[in-house]
Amino acid sequence: MGSKYPPSLRCCLPLWAVTLQVAFTLLFYFFISYDTLQVDQKLLVTYQVIKDLTLMAALGFGFLSSSFRRHSWSSVAFNLFMLALGVQASVLLDHFLSWTSQKDALSLLSIRKATMSTMPVLISAGAVLGKANLVQLAVMVLMETAAFGATRFADKQVFQVEDHTVMMHGHMFGAYFGLLVAWCLSRSLPSGVDEKVQTEKVQMATGSSLFAMLGTLLLWIFWPSFNSALVELTDKKNAVLNTYYALAVSTVTATSMSALSHSQGKINMVHIHNAVLAGGVAVGAPCSLIPSPWIAMVLGLTAGLISIGGAKCLPVCLNRMLQIQNPGGTHYTFGLPGVLGAVTYFCKTRKNSYSIFDVNQMIIDFGALSFALAMGMAAGLLTGWLLNIKVWRAPHATKYFDDQAFWEFPHLAVGF
Amino acid sequence: MGSKYPPSLRCCLPLWAVTLQVAFTLLFYFFISYDTLQVDQKLLVTYQVIKDLTLMAALGFGFLSSSFRRHSWSSVAFNLFMLALGVQASVLLDHFLSWTSQKDALSLLSIRKATMSTMPVLISAGAVLGKANLVQLAVMVLMETAAFGATRFADKQVFQVEDHTVMMHGHMFGAYFGLLVAWCLSRSLPSGVDEKVQTEKVQMATGSSLFAMLGTLLLWIFWPSFNSALVELTDKKNAVLNTYYALAVSTVTATSMSALSHSQGKINMVHIHNAVLAGGVAVGAPCSLIPSPWIAMVLGLTAGLISIGGAKCLPVCLNRMLQIQNPGGTHYTFGLPGVLGAVTYFCKTRKNSYSIFDVNQMIIDFGALSFALAMGMAAGLLTGWLLNIKVWRAPHATKYFDDQAFWEFPHLAVGF
Amino acid sequence: MGSKYPPSLRCCLPLWAVTLQVAFTLLFYFFISYDTLQVDQKLLVTYQVIKDLTLMAALGFGFLSSSFRRHSWSSVAFNLFMLALGVQASVLLDHFLSWTSQKDALSLLSIRKATMSTMPVLISAGAVLGKANLVQLAVMVLMETAAFGATRFADKQVFQVEDHTVMMHGHMFGAYFGLLVAWCLSRSLPSGVDEKVQTEKVQMATGSSLFAMLGTLLLWIFWPSFNSALVELTDKKNAVLNTYYALAVSTVTATSMSALSHSQGKINMVHIHNAVLAGGVAVGAPCSLIPSPWIAMVLGLTAGLISIGGAKCLPVCLNRMLQIQNPGGTHYTFGLPGVLGAVTYFCKTRKNSYSIFDVNQMIIDFGALSFALAMGMAAGLLTGWLLNIKVWRAPHATKYFDDQAFWEFPHLAVGF
Repeated sequence: MGSKYPPSLRCCLPLWAVTLQVAFTLLFYFFISYDTLQVDQKLLVTYQVIKDLTLMAALGFGFLSSSFRRHSWSSVAFNLFMLALGVQASVLLDHFLSWTSQKDALSLLSIRKATMSTMPVLISAGAVLGKANLVQLAVMVLMETAAFGATRFADKQVFQVEDHTVMMHGHMFGAYFGLLVAWCLSRSLPSGVDEKVQTEKVQMATGSSLFAMLGTLLLWIFWPSFNSALVELTDKKNAVLNTYYALAVSTVTATSMSALSHSQGKINMVHIHNAVLAGGVAVGAPCSLIPSPWIAMVLGLTAGLISIGGAKCLPVCLNRMLQIQNPGGTHYTFGLPGVLGAVTYFCKTRKNSYSIFDVNQMIIDFGALSFALAMGMAAGLLTGWLLNIKVWRAPHATKYFDDQAFWEFPHLAVGF
Repeated sequence: MGSKYPPSLRCCLPLWAVTLQVAFTLLFYFFISYDTLQVDQKLLVTYQVIKDLTLMAALGFGFLSSSFRRHSWSSVAFNLFMLALGVQASVLLDHFLSWTSQKDALSLLSIRKATMSTMPVLISAGAVLGKANLVQLAVMVLMETAAFGATRFADKQVFQVEDHTVMMHGHMFGAYFGLLVAWCLSRSLPSGVDEKVQTEKVQMATGSSLFAMLGTLLLWIFWPSFNSALVELTDKKNAVLNTYYALAVSTVTATSMSALSHSQGKINMVHIHNAVLAGGVAVGAPCSLIPSPWIAMVLGLTAGLISIGGAKCLPVCLNRMLQIQNPGGTHYTFGLPGVLGAVTYFCKTRKNSYSIFDVNQMIIDFGALSFALAMGMAAGLLTGWLLNIKVWRAPHATKYFDDQAFWEFPHLAVGF
Repeated sequence: MGSKYPPSLRCCLPLWAVTLQVAFTLLFYFFISYDTLQVDQKLLVTYQVIKDLTLMAALGFGFLSSSFRRHSWSSVAFNLFMLALGVQASVLLDHFLSWTSQKDALSLLSIRKATMSTMPVLISAGAVLGKANLVQLAVMVLMETAAFGATRFADKQVFQVEDHTVMMHGHMFGAYFGLLVAWCLSRSLPSGVDEKVQTEKVQMATGSSLFAMLGTLLLWIFWPSFNSALVELTDKKNAVLNTYYALAVSTVTATSMSALSHSQGKINMVHIHNAVLAGGVAVGAPCSLIPSPWIAMVLGLTAGLISIGGAKCLPVCLNRMLQIQNPGGTHYTFGLPGVLGAVTYFCKTRKNSYSIFDVNQMIIDFGALSFALAMGMAAGLLTGWLLNIKVWRAPHATKYFDDQAFWEFPHLAVGF
């Protein structure tokens, strides 16, 4: 039962990854230095936020996509690899994009920003994992970091959107980027391959679905930290409370609607993994503007409904029309609730400006939102096309969602 | 091997849960608003405590009861559902109970209090999970939140006990509430059912017992946060240190006594899951009053002994006399050590008042303790009786501790 | 299939453990009291660090060594037992070693120091777990705590090394201590025993390797807390950032080099569990002195290379020459990167003192490093010899790495 996978990644992966890593080190050598501020009053607070974000990124997103029966090792380990690479790339990119201002020496704040900028990459990875090898994922990290960096730059410079809102556009950006990359990588199976084996691979195992639940719970617990990370201290309380209520309501809604969507009233574990987070995603952009808890609760309820509805209806459409197989639920966890949140933000801002006919602001907000969506899709298509090039030695379609293509299994190693 | 469970929860669960959720949202709309304090100096500290408590509630209690071979999915996911519902109910209840004072606008402090008030619900759930469906659990959340809210109100108004002590009574309250609900839901199996299958269900699987260990460890690590959450800043240091030492000693004691209680000197994993926490529970009420570490250590040692002794002797009595099957160990983790802690608190307060004949205070403390116990038992009986009503479509006794009654399993879904 | 293990631990373990625990309680009664400082401004910050460290110790190290197919229960539970015992022993030892100064009343800082002093014990445990019973491990905790306490005392009094550096020597100390204890406990199997069964035991299971990954990720996330715990507030920023970058780079390097080291380009999960942490270990000692991120990155890259190289080459040498079987990877995770870090620290200090011929300081630093190494090895040999005494009722070599020797399994308990 030896793997038929050609042993090509042996030189390919170390060559690319170590070269990239040496290049990053050189760039850091030439361009990045620590700031010389001796006493940073906010140091411990910022470090606390970084810990929460890293916990979400490394553990939360890592285990969230680990529920596939045969792909749990890759999901967790590749996620960490992408995080480590993405943060470095984001720090460098942020440095170059703020080149003119000359004030961006390396502090803890740049790690905070870089970790948040890497989140869309990890969201995309939820759709792509299982269809790409580590070299392809490294390329995707670079492409997506660059594209999201450009989006953030344009949002700030052209549309004058603030940091927090731009980051919250990242949910949509990541989701649609990932979906389009996954679409490009989707290939019909060669005839003669047992389809049952392929279907079985993307099913959950009981044990690894508990790991996915662990990831979900960690994201659930620390989501208020994520939503309030870039918010001013005076607005932080509202951001935390709104996120908390939206998450609580979307949990109750998603769990019960999942029972409604099954003919026998049974709950689907994949829905729980994904839809309980929808409230947090939806409340992301407007979280500091919402003045009363009930609005956050209505948003959480709507997000839970949309998410379960999407999970029930969309796979049918997407599978048939676009041939995207997306068992991870990236679309209805981050895509749809992200759009809901952006639209809510859009309404809230208008209301806050006390001028219904503030057409200018409307156009600008709408422009920023569409721009983020368009950039995510365009960059996703480009990246997907790029990943199809032969040079990356992509896994065969029969080896999709298969840990054995990438990992040395001790109990198989006996024969070697 | 299709499930014989009637598909009734399909309408029942969404109807109840979404109605409840909409009712909560309306109540929030009419009654709750954020406070208008712009700058809250303690904001980040309070948020830190909330994160710790939510981590304990969602992850710790969720995984603590996930060790049953066939009931791990339900344990974790239903626990999150109950937490989300319980926090909302507690916030509303706290608001109505402090109606007269008019000063309780929604701040982070109310979430902290609400999360702590939901802990007894999650403790009870440890005894009830596996015997009730999600609708019954939602009813239980409402009943127990109301009962515990009433207890807290009476303790504060009548007995003048402070918040911290009332919350620590919650361990006992939750444990005995849960045991009596479980007693009401215990049913003898219909004849003809293979008892072996039923016994096998409540056994641990190796993998899921590691998840339970994860829950235990998280509770162990964050227990000092729980015990010190409502303590004044000046007493916080003692509360943290005493909890830490009591936990350390009860770990060593419980592990070694578990070996003594087995005929071949083998350790029981269920004992470890539960008894290592006994020290933290026992030290809960008096944690800020204990002036020296050795007292906390003696308390931890006693709690470990009581807990293992209870685990060895009580199931025999309880199973025979009361027909309660409680594989989760709620009684000897939270019940007995909670009583030990309350009694210690009782002695400590008396000693601190430097008057051995302070009969008044004695009666008051004893009254508060008995009142909490009596309320827990009475409310538990009432709730248990309520949950036996047909309208909730309770699972059959043969489907107890069975994930298949509630969850859509992908690998079984093929035939549907 | 009943266990052939003699039921001797039944009295042995409780006798030793409870006696030890009572002795500790008595020592605390006579010698340790809380400090009377009423208001501690740093209280919450210190408690935050303690939580991070306890999380690393109880969850991180506990699950890191849980990947063996048949030894996961023991790894996690025994790790907690050792932590609970080690912290108490360290607090007592620290008190007696600072006897003269009279100022070391018990505060949160002493728990922080004690938890950090227990880390080397948990590192050693990674090499010893599976070959020793709980009584032997308790003896090892006492021996190693005493030996590391003596090393710290000598380092501070004789070599005038500061606390932070001494603690970072603990990685090496723990690794070589553990390796030599494991060497003493390694026994050739009696003839007639199926070697296949023994080999199979130390292999990973897919599920428990995810638990090990959880441990790794938690250590990865909180390593900056560990490295910056004893650093002055002004240097904390550099310590955190350098650790973060070194970890990121060693993750990328280790993952890709692991593919290079396999003939088919497949990644080894055990490498990932261990080598991604190498960067954090290597950057430990000099973390607050490194002035630019690129140096930390180069250190992380080197640590990743050394770690994977060691993982590939050393087992062959060690297994053949010294008969040490060390599937846990203690040596190449903590031993080699720890030496690299100490040597880097050595160079950095010299450079910082602006005097290349500062021979005095060179000799002192080199002396402290060699002393820690020598103490670790000598104490390890002594402890290994001690653990071979019959009185501890060590498990047979055929029962190495076997949970059944220590744990009551419900599904086997039927026949008893």
